[in-house]
Amino acid sequence: MEEKKLKIAIVQFNPIRSEIEKNINKAFDIIDKFKGADVYLFPELFLSGYLFESIDEVKRLSLLQSDPFFERLYNFTKIKKIAIAGGYVENESGRFFNSAFLIGDGKFLLNYRKVHLFNDEKDFFTPSVSGFKVTEYKSIKFGMMICFDWLFPESARTLTLKGAQVILHPANLVLPYCQDAMITRAMENKVFIATANRVGIEKIKNKILKFTGKSQIVDPNGKRIVSFSANKESVKIIEINPELANNKMITTKNNVLLDRRPDQYIL
Amino acid sequence: MEEKKLKIAIVQFNPIRSEIEKNINKAFDIIDKFKGADVYLFPELFLSGYLFESIDEVKRLSLLQSDPFFERLYNFTKIKKIAIAGGYVENESGRFFNSAFLIGDGKFLLNYRKVHLFNDEKDFFTPSVSGFKVTEYKSIKFGMMICFDWLFPESARTLTLKGAQVILHPANLVLPYCQDAMITRAMENKVFIATANRVGIEKIKNKILKFTGKSQIVDPNGKRIVSFSANKESVKIIEINPELANNKMITTKNNVLLDRRPDQYIL
Repeated sequence: MEEKKLKIAIVQFNPIRSEIEKNINKAFDIIDKFKGADVYLFPELFLSGYLFESIDEVKRLSLLQSDPFFERLYNFTKIKKIAIAGGYVENESGRFFNSAFLIGDGKFLLNYRKVHLFNDEKDFFTPSVSGFKVTEYKSIKFGMMICFDWLFPESARTLTLKGAQVILHPANLVLPYCQDAMITRAMENKVFIATANRVGIEKIKNKILKFTGKSQIVDPNGKRIVSFSANKESVKIIEINPELANNKMITTKNNVLLDRRPDQYIL
Repeated sequence: MEEKKLKIAIVQFNPIRSEIEKNINKAFDIIDKFKGADVYLFPELFLSGYLFESIDEVKRLSLLQSDPFFERLYNFTKIKKIAIAGGYVENESGRFFNSAFLIGDGKFLLNYRKVHLFNDEKDFFTPSVSGFKVTEYKSIKFGMMICFDWLFPESARTLTLKGAQVILHPANLVLPYCQDAMITRAMENKVFIATANRVGIEKIKNKILKFTGKSQIVDPNGKRIVSFSANKESVKIIEINPELANNKMITTKNNVLLDRRPDQYIL
């Protein structure tokens, strides 16, 4: 049987805050320039930037799922036979979500709304009630989590139990812990985890945030197979074999999922 | 209010395989020599050693809870006003468990039977159905997990949800991943985790295992506050403030337990 290999492009990106159109065009240019990947993964909120001055600004930078931007994405991905994933402010009937899309070959494959909101995100966004989702693209099962979801082991665990082989993880990390923690997350679930983090600094009023870069992919053995710089925008295309995530054995007698003892756990 | 400080002695130990009496006496000698701790934490199976030639040997090296050894521990801990924790082969009606005790001030405070058995342990031991437990000693809440339980985030999570401030973690680690993973475990739960690992090599027939040492304590911020060598037996007494584990805030707006979303998780 032929192995299903996947070429994944991690785009470590520095969006211009509140300039959606510029960020969209820059993203399309990047994809045109770095040809050959199956999936292009951008950071959390890469279209809008991360900080918001007011709820009015959140609204102005939000997208309905009927927004023409998505139409452009359908056409673009259909022609190029690729998928694109990344974060955006989702507007549903005036409620705002910190969401991420996976759009491939002209189809909206997955829309994920962040379950665990970080810090001041709680002032603007509604936490998801539609949960963690897995979808299939090119016969590979993808799950999605966003940034701070990393801290909660239940996020990657739930995606794994739903069948994810590759977890896409758009991020805007400001704390330095996640990248190492993802080694644990990948190993405890025997899955691939691709983190596309942003770089750069954002300022509004009295707030300033520096994002930590170091995007990465960790394989099901907990090995970091690619790691980016802390400061520079860059793109790397990495080939992985998602079927490695089907092997859940960590010793000859231990399966990381079947050895779980849910009757002994508290949820 | 006075802070409840705890002095915990981590004993990185190299037992003599199958020589219970020698290991017991050596443990008592260590405690006599390293005075001043409240709790002495020994590794997994520190009385028997880790490898077994046969089920008959497991039986010979097992202890009933009525074994005179425990009487000695009651007397010893009562006189010295200390607690001792560590692993042993438990025999209950001819079933054998990879267990760990916490005995303090003359009382059997906690008996924990390993929930997640590692590799060939499955040939000899019965997995626990009595689960993860928390007990109180000197007004501090202790949980217990053993070695391979580390891989399953549900172990430390369940203990934290049951109120543990300090997780005692006797281990016989042979893989190199646990010590870093415990940084993630401590941070995601905001608890202390004390890992007492063993050192040395064990051989039987065609099996040989080298244990990885590097015992440690990680604090609720994921900081490794003490770390041992990979090879040498040693004892260190570390003072911690278990009340730090009561603060579950990781940002001003994020609580690592209250921000959990069990309705979005799969158990």
